Amino acid sequence: MVLVVRGELRLTAGKAAVQVAHAAVLLTQKAAARAPRDLADWLADGQMKVAVTVPTLEEMSSLERVARAAGILTVWVEDAGFTEVPPGTRTCLGLGPARVNALDPITGGLPLL
Amino acid sequence: MVLVVRGELRLTAGKAAVQVAHAAVLLTQKAAARAPRDLADWLADGQMKVAVTVPTLEEMSSLERVARAAGILTVWVEDAGFTEVPPGTRTCLGLGPARVNALDPITGGLPLL
Repeated sequence: MVLVVRGELRLTAGKAAVQVAHAAVLLTQKAAARAPRDLADWLADGQMKVAVTVPTLEEMSSLERVARAAGILTVWVEDAGFTEVPPGTRTCLGLGPARVNALDPITGGLPLL
Repeated sequence: MVLVVRGELRLTAGKAAVQVAHAAVLLTQKAAARAPRDLADWLADGQMKVAVTVPTLEEMSSLERVARAAGILTVWVEDAGFTEVPPGTRTCLGLGPARVNALDPITGGLPLL
């Protein structure tokens, strides 16, 4: 699972952590419905997650399209916007769960959060 | 849901985010088995999460005991230890999902991550 935080929003560490956690829970639910075997494998392997960052929403959207075309589950996190950003702001993109060799060509070059 | 990060480990923002996400996924699974109605309520309400920090494992253990005594689900995250901390290190404590008025007396005074 790769969780991509939108760098231009300059979220605090705590706010970013919560967005990453939202994405992970949403992907877990989506995978339970659509890819239960991938989910079971990922949980059995210690539910590996990596948090990375890209600057802009455009770059996140590009990653999302590439991942979706590769058959990887994707979710957007939109913040309710009570604190640091306006309501509905897309803060984080979640990809997976998938094998490292499926995700790595898409996100392997991105800087860690 | 409240996710408590162990401050003395001085994790990077990305590493802390991943620990928080581990805790959230583990709590979601635990709640699906033990408190499905609480889980459904929490998901329907936008899966509210707050990430906070306390300095030491002792303080986390104390929070865990108090939460458990109040009937709140708890999970520990132990890091596999490939990067920033030794294997098996307890990095994060997850509490919930539960109503704000159940969690607030226990964690409401803690600083945000």
